[in-house]
Amino acid sequence: MKPLEWKVTAQEGNARTGILRTRRSVIETPVFMPVGTQATVKGVRFEWLEAELDARIILGNTYHLFLRPGVDVIREIGGLHKFSSWTRSLLTDSGGFQVFSLTDLRKLTEEGVEFRSHIDGSKKFLSPEVSMEIQAALGAEIVMVFDECPPGKADFQTTRKSLEMTARWALRSRNRFDQLQNEKMDTGFLAAENLSGRQSLFGIVQGASHLDLRRESLYKTVEIGFDGYAIGGLSVGEEKSVMYDVIENIAPQMPEDAPRYLMGVGTPEDLIEAVYRGVDMFDCVIPTRNGRTGTAFVSSGKLNIRNTKFARDTEPLDFACSCSVCRRYSRAYLRHLYQTGEMLAAILISHHNLAFFLDTMWRAREAIRGGVFENFRRDFIGKIRDAEKEKSGAVRGE
Amino acid sequence: MKPLEWKVTAQEGNARTGILRTRRSVIETPVFMPVGTQATVKGVRFEWLEAELDARIILGNTYHLFLRPGVDVIREIGGLHKFSSWTRSLLTDSGGFQVFSLTDLRKLTEEGVEFRSHIDGSKKFLSPEVSMEIQAALGAEIVMVFDECPPGKADFQTTRKSLEMTARWALRSRNRFDQLQNEKMDTGFLAAENLSGRQSLFGIVQGASHLDLRRESLYKTVEIGFDGYAIGGLSVGEEKSVMYDVIENIAPQMPEDAPRYLMGVGTPEDLIEAVYRGVDMFDCVIPTRNGRTGTAFVSSGKLNIRNTKFARDTEPLDFACSCSVCRRYSRAYLRHLYQTGEMLAAILISHHNLAFFLDTMWRAREAIRGGVFENFRRDFIGKIRDAEKEKSGAVRGE
Repeated sequence: MKPLEWKVTAQEGNARTGILRTRRSVIETPVFMPVGTQATVKGVRFEWLEAELDARIILGNTYHLFLRPGVDVIREIGGLHKFSSWTRSLLTDSGGFQVFSLTDLRKLTEEGVEFRSHIDGSKKFLSPEVSMEIQAALGAEIVMVFDECPPGKADFQTTRKSLEMTARWALRSRNRFDQLQNEKMDTGFLAAENLSGRQSLFGIVQGASHLDLRRESLYKTVEIGFDGYAIGGLSVGEEKSVMYDVIENIAPQMPEDAPRYLMGVGTPEDLIEAVYRGVDMFDCVIPTRNGRTGTAFVSSGKLNIRNTKFARDTEPLDFACSCSVCRRYSRAYLRHLYQTGEMLAAILISHHNLAFFLDTMWRAREAIRGGVFENFRRDFIGKIRDAEKEKSGAVRGE
Repeated sequence: MKPLEWKVTAQEGNARTGILRTRRSVIETPVFMPVGTQATVKGVRFEWLEAELDARIILGNTYHLFLRPGVDVIREIGGLHKFSSWTRSLLTDSGGFQVFSLTDLRKLTEEGVEFRSHIDGSKKFLSPEVSMEIQAALGAEIVMVFDECPPGKADFQTTRKSLEMTARWALRSRNRFDQLQNEKMDTGFLAAENLSGRQSLFGIVQGASHLDLRRESLYKTVEIGFDGYAIGGLSVGEEKSVMYDVIENIAPQMPEDAPRYLMGVGTPEDLIEAVYRGVDMFDCVIPTRNGRTGTAFVSSGKLNIRNTKFARDTEPLDFACSCSVCRRYSRAYLRHLYQTGEMLAAILISHHNLAFFLDTMWRAREAIRGGVFENFRRDFIGKIRDAEKEKSGAVRGE
């Protein structure tokens, strides 16, 4: 039996809806997965994620949890679900992306990466095997292979070398992962109907902006065989058009019978554009990160709550949004909270942003099921473009 | 008709339960009122305060809201209820306490206090009249007179001079308040059965630790006549025994047919000791302030979540507590959140602390109604004392 059940339920062009069933929850795709780096989605209680936002899966971060509280603590307590009290699905990344962001603090070999903790400078080591061991202790439903992530603008040779190592690491990840499952080292094991109750493992396609290398990476990854496939290494400094180009060329080539996950992307527009090109799963820190700096995502794009013009504005962040924040709180109040440094500003704007992202995915699913996704996409992007034009016009007119 | 309805419902010694009805909510006393300085109880959404914690009244702070967002903004929006979306009762302090904390930035005359904003250094002025005008614009159910607040250890002559001015200011507060009500300047006006729909005004008894002066201040305050009476200027640096002594001598002398409010106090023990001495209402920042620094109030006193011993502790903060935090989250998880600087640590511990304070008041009410408050008090304080002894014993033994 497999660890996941995956079924495409509707299709329009490359866009598709699906149902992904894990041992812990049923996830309708396209899905946005809130990021819970430290086993908390910053500023938003699980109670809200469950009841109102109805997030069926969130992320945890291997690198951060490895450093604090440490994998021993989480293993001893019985995994990330028990530690955090989150009972629905979890996806853990491999730690690769974070480690490769520590440019000055790391030493890369075929075996793995030695690095210094950004917290206390202590020496640490991650490899495909170590990452799989940590992720088994965390016990998430979806585990990611340990990959090397080259810079977005890396040249052909660097990228080729990198993705060859990534392919070797993917195989080592696969092997160690399978051993760990057989050794019952997964703390999250849970019997579920017609499922193995085990963790699932996703492969990652790299190759920066080089389409040939992307295809090669995809081929090598599919050859090993995974429960799902991700596109990594995008939204790391390259142009938007390059990103869309990679997705357009790669996503439709990814196995149809497995979920396709675009890692770390993006704005609501990016999500819609990627769904259009065949992607099923997303995660990104921007709803909560921007929430903490006072930026709300709304139907017309972005709204900066710090703006003086909102001081007496009794309207909600977005009239089109029915989240608990938009139903109750005014821009004037939210601005006041932000200006006075109150935590509640971040709490409420992050909540709204997550609601907006999850609702956007809900609307995309509805559109695909109704066969009107093309129209939906045009309207959605059109509203944002119109608002942008209006803004820049207003500035010119002043 | 009066703005408040007040009824003592049970009594045991000096301790009493009562029901205070305002135009916006029914408040059972003894009551703890969460502090919402900036029109938010720090880190706790109103939804939680309403549904789970069932707070019937919270505080707003005149000084802080006067500076930001400014009284014009709040008046234009229609008062603090509309501005913040809090629909139950509000109490606003007069701004006196905050202004007198700005020792270096203020100039006191008979007319009022000139001071510099702690935010931008701009010159501001508060007087009994200005404070009443701001509080009418805020539109709280309970307004406090503008008083001078001498230091806790002020000598007899300083204190006497101060309370004489406080008495003159109380009269000016009363007069301006009455005018404003007649001029319908209260933004919070609300018709309610058998009530005037207007704001109520509380007088404040000062006199530092000098019992004679406290009595004199009480006499002068009652002579003017208010809807409720507060004891101010305690918990400002004096010994606990001095504070209890003042409460013991003053609270029972306060009018029986009006609620008695002890301002800015205190720990759960302080609350129980003050209820025992006849106090009905409390407010204090410590549940949320300590929540932000990782200190939880529990049956056995205080628990410092930063302590290493909690790293693998899967127990709740307090087994005796049934709040949503204790029902779900472990000490290990809360400690991890605190150590990683996650907002959720403050959110959850503040929530628990408020639950603990409100529950303590609920239990006090039950005990008084059942005629067993004396026992309850002994048990409550006893548990904390025993835990303290155990802790200090353990340290000595090491």
